[in-house]
Amino acid sequence: MTRGFGLGVAQVGGIGPAEPRSSVVARLVDLMRRAKDKGASFVVFPELALTTFFPRYWQESTDAMDRYFERSMPSRETIALFECARDLRIGFSLGYAELTPEGRRHNTSVIVDEAGEIRGRYRKIHLPGHADRWEGAPFQHLEKRYFEVGDLGLGVFPAAGTRIGMCLCNDRRWPEVYRVLALQSAELVVLGYNTPTEVPGWREEPHAKMFTHLLSLQAGAYQNSVWVAAAGKSGTEDGQHLIGGSAIVAPSGEIVAKASTEGDELVYCDIDLDMAAPYRSGVFDFEAHRRPEEYTLITERKGRGEPLPRPEGSAGGP
Amino acid sequence: MTRGFGLGVAQVGGIGPAEPRSSVVARLVDLMRRAKDKGASFVVFPELALTTFFPRYWQESTDAMDRYFERSMPSRETIALFECARDLRIGFSLGYAELTPEGRRHNTSVIVDEAGEIRGRYRKIHLPGHADRWEGAPFQHLEKRYFEVGDLGLGVFPAAGTRIGMCLCNDRRWPEVYRVLALQSAELVVLGYNTPTEVPGWREEPHAKMFTHLLSLQAGAYQNSVWVAAAGKSGTEDGQHLIGGSAIVAPSGEIVAKASTEGDELVYCDIDLDMAAPYRSGVFDFEAHRRPEEYTLITERKGRGEPLPRPEGSAGGP
Repeated sequence: MTRGFGLGVAQVGGIGPAEPRSSVVARLVDLMRRAKDKGASFVVFPELALTTFFPRYWQESTDAMDRYFERSMPSRETIALFECARDLRIGFSLGYAELTPEGRRHNTSVIVDEAGEIRGRYRKIHLPGHADRWEGAPFQHLEKRYFEVGDLGLGVFPAAGTRIGMCLCNDRRWPEVYRVLALQSAELVVLGYNTPTEVPGWREEPHAKMFTHLLSLQAGAYQNSVWVAAAGKSGTEDGQHLIGGSAIVAPSGEIVAKASTEGDELVYCDIDLDMAAPYRSGVFDFEAHRRPEEYTLITERKGRGEPLPRPEGSAGGP
Repeated sequence: MTRGFGLGVAQVGGIGPAEPRSSVVARLVDLMRRAKDKGASFVVFPELALTTFFPRYWQESTDAMDRYFERSMPSRETIALFECARDLRIGFSLGYAELTPEGRRHNTSVIVDEAGEIRGRYRKIHLPGHADRWEGAPFQHLEKRYFEVGDLGLGVFPAAGTRIGMCLCNDRRWPEVYRVLALQSAELVVLGYNTPTEVPGWREEPHAKMFTHLLSLQAGAYQNSVWVAAAGKSGTEDGQHLIGGSAIVAPSGEIVAKASTEGDELVYCDIDLDMAAPYRSGVFDFEAHRRPEEYTLITERKGRGEPLPRPEGSAGGP
């Protein structure tokens, strides 16, 4: 049995700090059309897809960042995306900076269906970086300053004839994220990211950024029997380099499509949602094999602590 | 700062069903000596390292399998390993089938220190395969028949100047395992495995076995800022092929040493335990970044279920 699904991932090249929304939205609409031409029923856009990756900038007043935030979705400036989705009968996910009517700021993504209606919303939970100013650094990574931790949980939404879970960027490095989505029977996990090649104070070889990005997607897909689709904002933005590597990963853990550039690029694959079935009923039959009673530290502890006392028989004896 | 540690992984080639313990133990002693010659302070042996991988055989009476089990550790037949460790001042981990004085059967591993004393014991929690007979299959995978689920939890033990967590074979595919060990401040996770290239009823490409083996180790190491050392029983046993690929993986997720054969082979690396420090205080600073309140499904649910109801604001709205 197969269940075909046309899956597009829209990588977006660098967006300068002065590029107007109208220009960015036109680029996204073009990518959506290219996805439809390939046969996509759903297309994944990056995190903070409407603006430059502004957490690189320090501002004493966070209000000075308001121009990077959306007060409504859709808005006058973004409605073209929703209209295009409705016209083409294609769903999409989109990441953006959200300023709520209550004045809360979140790193957010939405799932929009082929009627152009929002069907699901996610606010980023794992905010990387810092809230203070890194003196002397060429770039900051101020997600902990400009965003609050998401308050909507890790949800799974029916859309495009399947069940889609969302996360954003740094979330993809945490195995708990995929697991919580898989335990709600997600079949597809979509995410956007902005991953700088160099982070001040973190001496990692540049190639490691691409390696750990892909490793995280592949492990999440395999260990949870889900498809994973990740769209990056990539290339150079205002002097800062963001990795490319937008990709689609199968439930086998294998990459089946990957961007070959760092610019606007449509990555596409005709996937089979049912490919996951033998994994879910075999090696990753959760009901048969998982042992939640052994996992309690995962929710009981936040940080690293002392080894638990061991039961009798753990050491010594015959 | 660096903290050097000599880490050996002893891959063991096929063990036939009739090979006596004395012969196997002599092979393990030889591998231990080779590890010491390289500079190892600790060497990792495979799962069920003393016998053939007997869960491939159906027996109506589980008692017929008793000859594959150890009633004590060490025993007259295995004491040579412990004496060698003491003589060489080298620690080791060893997997074996354990029959307890109470008559319980477990797939077990122990950590033995450089004085030849057992310092930690683990009984396998994630038992793969089945308990019933697969009719017509060339091999069975009867771990759920011959072993009980481990009753000692996932422990971390002080040994060889570091903190070592253990797991076995299929455990390595479950991200919860590494996480529970990392939350107890493990610096090194050691494991043994017996991974057949072909499992009846599971049509996976043969190369996928090696790929998902390494993917699981690499993700576990990276996402938890630990070193991972995995020793396989490898090659052909009584007509069944087991993958090789015994490996040492760094906290970067990168493989730093890997077996090149499927026989008895000593894999070695001079590792730096402190390489993990910037990961633990950076991208994987659990205390700063983890959100246990979002992970409750991991312990509340065993199998896949319906999506949770979403809070207000999850769909629609501005």
